[in-house]
Amino acid sequence: MILTVTLNAALDITYHVDRLRPQGSNRVHTVAERAGGKGVNVSRVLHALGHRTVVTGLAGGAAGSALRRELATARLPEQLLLIDGESRRTVAVVDESAGDTTILLEPGPVVRPDEWERLLEHLDRLLQGAAAVVFSGSLPRGVPEDAYAQLVRLAAGHRVPAVLDADGAALRSALPAGPALIKPNADELAATTGLADPVAAAQALLAAGAEAVVASLGPDGLIAVTPQGSWQARPPERLAGNPTGAGDAAVAALTVGLVAGAAWPERLADAVALSAATVAAPLAGDFDLDVLRRLRPLVDVGPLSEPRSP
Amino acid sequence: MILTVTLNAALDITYHVDRLRPQGSNRVHTVAERAGGKGVNVSRVLHALGHRTVVTGLAGGAAGSALRRELATARLPEQLLLIDGESRRTVAVVDESAGDTTILLEPGPVVRPDEWERLLEHLDRLLQGAAAVVFSGSLPRGVPEDAYAQLVRLAAGHRVPAVLDADGAALRSALPAGPALIKPNADELAATTGLADPVAAAQALLAAGAEAVVASLGPDGLIAVTPQGSWQARPPERLAGNPTGAGDAAVAALTVGLVAGAAWPERLADAVALSAATVAAPLAGDFDLDVLRRLRPLVDVGPLSEPRSP
Repeated sequence: MILTVTLNAALDITYHVDRLRPQGSNRVHTVAERAGGKGVNVSRVLHALGHRTVVTGLAGGAAGSALRRELATARLPEQLLLIDGESRRTVAVVDESAGDTTILLEPGPVVRPDEWERLLEHLDRLLQGAAAVVFSGSLPRGVPEDAYAQLVRLAAGHRVPAVLDADGAALRSALPAGPALIKPNADELAATTGLADPVAAAQALLAAGAEAVVASLGPDGLIAVTPQGSWQARPPERLAGNPTGAGDAAVAALTVGLVAGAAWPERLADAVALSAATVAAPLAGDFDLDVLRRLRPLVDVGPLSEPRSP
Repeated sequence: MILTVTLNAALDITYHVDRLRPQGSNRVHTVAERAGGKGVNVSRVLHALGHRTVVTGLAGGAAGSALRRELATARLPEQLLLIDGESRRTVAVVDESAGDTTILLEPGPVVRPDEWERLLEHLDRLLQGAAAVVFSGSLPRGVPEDAYAQLVRLAAGHRVPAVLDADGAALRSALPAGPALIKPNADELAATTGLADPVAAAQALLAAGAEAVVASLGPDGLIAVTPQGSWQARPPERLAGNPTGAGDAAVAALTVGLVAGAAWPERLADAVALSAATVAAPLAGDFDLDVLRRLRPLVDVGPLSEPRSP
């Protein structure tokens, strides 16, 4: 079982409007709600791929109840810890004429110290049955600054490899705890290290304690920087669509590869194809199986040190 | 007790953002939720003025539960009928830099015929204790087109005077049922009658069956066209603020005057002063008591037929 931990789980609301008129009154013609947050998206992909997964993290209030009901409807097993605060909602307003989206992000709950302690005890139990654990997304207010360091150490105590998808101080503080894999994107790499070159930045994060670094370079695919070597995997074509959730799909594929002990080029090819198949699907956490099957054999993977064909 | 009926009750959510960036990702720094819909706002004003009132209408789903909890917190008595559909949310995004607001209106529930029948039975009971009833706002999907005609007749059967604040077909179809008072604004008057002149339009609605017509002309105040005569009341000054709820405050004052049997000039002066005091308060359904006390003696009321001093 792969455990995913979303400390700032969300209720993702999508509104479709004909045309968004700022300063105006806009009639929403369709409303969709679903559980969100990066770890939830990872579990959704794992579940769709047929892997056993459990969603955990923190949820509370009316939005927390609504997101738990949606997970039940989607048959995604969850062991979220209930907190007193109100889980955040995100509202994505899709302008159908312009084809763009405006996003509103609520601030989310403030977690109390006793709730954080209860989460550590809760994860201590859940980690006993986990083959890997994924820690994903932003930290809610109130949790310790070194929250991810504490969680990675907790996983290490259970000999459960930890995949961490975070950025900034939350990522930096967790590196000495030795996560099995971190997955920043190019912007996060640069922001976390101050280095513009993604390979140099990934090497710096490896030196700081991560056991492996996979960085997503958007349409240029993924690079992996590991003690076993460094690789780049590129998608065979650019797909139009919704990039939200592509990083979470990559994390899902990389975690499956980690648990299976697959070779790095295989892991990267799986992750690139699954990311592309996610971009081709309209909702975060969904992917297009036909696109996945078509692209997987076409992903171009090679060592990073060699010059690549364009 | 004044009963207010909101067929399309809402959960009004207000988001404050520093600056709304369309097509961007916007951090919301404060979230407020409150029960909304025009009848709810009328009851809120009545309650704040010290009058006994009961909120009824239709509510359902998570938004329905949340709006009922907020009414309980505000100590506003409610006898909403629960339906299976999900009550609509409205999201008002306040841009603090620009000082403007973007509104998103969910479509709201679809009411089933058996739910409508249950509402008629429910109102039949509640009307027994009512001194007046206010029917306010848009019709949800699924209710009969002549919903307000049915409700006004139901009230007439109990000899309870009905105040109707609606527009378009919902208003037109209810006129033959003889509502004691209707309160369109200038745009609604024109849209409902096709007549540009507010006095001529109000007279047409009176001829179609309304017992009295009070039309709001925005900053120019109110006109009343009744069998007893016609009057205009003007606010003594223009107030900056939030005009949402000003019409509902006018309905509250006019209904109190109707129950008390006050003279029309008194009713209009109360309504204009209370509307202005509502504009001066930040949230719909709230008003500024100091503004109310200061403006009430200064409202200028006179017969419509005479030339007015500027």
